[in-house]
Amino acid sequence: MNTTPFFLDTETASYVIGEKALESSVKQFDKYPRYVVLVDENTREHCLPVFQQNLPDITINDVICIESGEEKKNLDQVLFIWNELTRLNVDRDALMIHLGGGVLTDIGGFVAATYKRGIDFANVPTTLLGMVDAAIGGKTGIDFGKFKNQVGLFVDPVSVIIDPLFLKTLADKHWQSGFAEVLKYGLIIDHELWQWLYGKNYREIDYWNKIIVRAARDKINIVRHDFKEKGVRKNLNFGHTIGHAFESFFLKMNKPVTHGQAIAAGMICESWLSEQRMDMECSKREEIVEMIDRNFPRLPVSENDLPTLMELMRQDKKVREGKLHFSLLKRMGKAVHDKEVSSGLVLKSIEFYLHNS
Amino acid sequence: MNTTPFFLDTETASYVIGEKALESSVKQFDKYPRYVVLVDENTREHCLPVFQQNLPDITINDVICIESGEEKKNLDQVLFIWNELTRLNVDRDALMIHLGGGVLTDIGGFVAATYKRGIDFANVPTTLLGMVDAAIGGKTGIDFGKFKNQVGLFVDPVSVIIDPLFLKTLADKHWQSGFAEVLKYGLIIDHELWQWLYGKNYREIDYWNKIIVRAARDKINIVRHDFKEKGVRKNLNFGHTIGHAFESFFLKMNKPVTHGQAIAAGMICESWLSEQRMDMECSKREEIVEMIDRNFPRLPVSENDLPTLMELMRQDKKVREGKLHFSLLKRMGKAVHDKEVSSGLVLKSIEFYLHNS
Repeated sequence: MNTTPFFLDTETASYVIGEKALESSVKQFDKYPRYVVLVDENTREHCLPVFQQNLPDITINDVICIESGEEKKNLDQVLFIWNELTRLNVDRDALMIHLGGGVLTDIGGFVAATYKRGIDFANVPTTLLGMVDAAIGGKTGIDFGKFKNQVGLFVDPVSVIIDPLFLKTLADKHWQSGFAEVLKYGLIIDHELWQWLYGKNYREIDYWNKIIVRAARDKINIVRHDFKEKGVRKNLNFGHTIGHAFESFFLKMNKPVTHGQAIAAGMICESWLSEQRMDMECSKREEIVEMIDRNFPRLPVSENDLPTLMELMRQDKKVREGKLHFSLLKRMGKAVHDKEVSSGLVLKSIEFYLHNS
Repeated sequence: MNTTPFFLDTETASYVIGEKALESSVKQFDKYPRYVVLVDENTREHCLPVFQQNLPDITINDVICIESGEEKKNLDQVLFIWNELTRLNVDRDALMIHLGGGVLTDIGGFVAATYKRGIDFANVPTTLLGMVDAAIGGKTGIDFGKFKNQVGLFVDPVSVIIDPLFLKTLADKHWQSGFAEVLKYGLIIDHELWQWLYGKNYREIDYWNKIIVRAARDKINIVRHDFKEKGVRKNLNFGHTIGHAFESFFLKMNKPVTHGQAIAAGMICESWLSEQRMDMECSKREEIVEMIDRNFPRLPVSENDLPTLMELMRQDKKVREGKLHFSLLKRMGKAVHDKEVSSGLVLKSIEFYLHNS
């Protein structure tokens, strides 16, 4: 079969998605006098050679290597890259190419947007999570203090090249992490995608190209109509208000869990909230919980951790005027945003997570 | 005389400029649930009471105080404000009000744009330089390493309130500093403004309201048509390529000069370049040098400092593909941008500054 990738140019970014995306993206990398590639120690070993083989005409002038890991999404790495760009005399006309997962594209976007008041950058995600979520939509940032993405900004890459080719070397836990976001699109906007997946464990799936193209397009469709998250984009936060609190909690305990594990747990809690607050059918909540439990282990939290989790949530960017707002499900494939939920009900949703399994 | 300020709403920002601007700007500060004012130790003492007297209906919820001074435009202050905003649980719906000079509005804009991926902010400049330049146009940032504005971004305030009322307490050196930028508008775009000023020392001038409204409008007219500095906005860099090198040089020596003093020196060098490279009339170059010397002392640089100054210039954001580009004068009131100048000629322009006075 002669596969071609999916091309899409929006107002701010140019996308190439699916098998052969990389070798088809020469145009996206054209016209820059200098190319600086940002990698971590893993993508330098496994992905940089693949990138060069598929785009032999691009001369990489500089490679900057940062450390991998969720817990490394911090200011120290930002300072390191700002310093490297300065030391290398990189000027405003260069293109930065961010070759890595969500942590790397989040850090890289923030650095590119703030170095000399902004230089162009391209995202080339190498993980499933990066491909279907982090590399799309211009959210960049780092963790600060004990809070996730406390510092950052909205800025779109000039291009995003999503090629499943890089997934050959992806570790199991990273497949799982990206899968949580794929399930989320099924729940908030794309019931057909949910039906493609329902009843399966991610390890059994062999039609990833189709899933990635679909999930990436779902995300692009949402963010291009609401870049700054004033309305419909908030639906992407389903599972994330409570999920981020879980993620920060385990990072703080020095026992980090993957983003996907945290968000999977958050989706169980927020599905329960959807049932309570939006009258979503009980059987649908059961369907969601069953599918998540089929793919994700429960997180080791206990009643004693509830006050800390609640405090972390109060620092969430989705808090407005001190009130907790959620994106919840009305039904399968249909989310609604800005639903205020009392602290008491949020607590009960985590208790549901602790006791119903 | 019943004075009213000048009101202007552009695509991105709302301006109120001139006498009574502050008391006329209630609408600009409307609708936010929380107000956080950023001050330094000077504006807290001299300007915050004036702000509150003129806008009694605004309840200031929090005041964050940073240290004043060009040499304090650094990452430590950014970290301090990010930490304070976090500690105070400030959320995305708040308005930050930046009450201060150019250093404060530059730092404040960067912080507001990056805290929780961006919160609204208003600039209320309290110095002449802030009123006619720094508070307008969305350039924010900090110095990093030994380079000016190495880290920052373009982001417009929601409103800019320019009221000469604050100038009553302004120290002489700050009048001088802002005056350099006023002269620059006269040279690059507004020959009539130049004629209002020519032959005067800034200490003799008593029609500041008229000058400030005119100069601020000149700047707004340029930046609203080229926010990201791809074309005509570059004309604002007249005097700044060499001027920034002077500014960084003295900062590095721990003998900081004001921005205006550095830019005044840069304008002498770049007027000489305009004569050499753009065939500006010799008599006009003499007119410019005479007016600048009437208002600014020459900086204490010597032949020995030339290599350091050249190296600092190579790090300038206006360098592209390793080449120095300048905005130069074609004639009085008419600048052109992207003029390549050889290192040799740049050196000679600084030698002209050293020996012709």
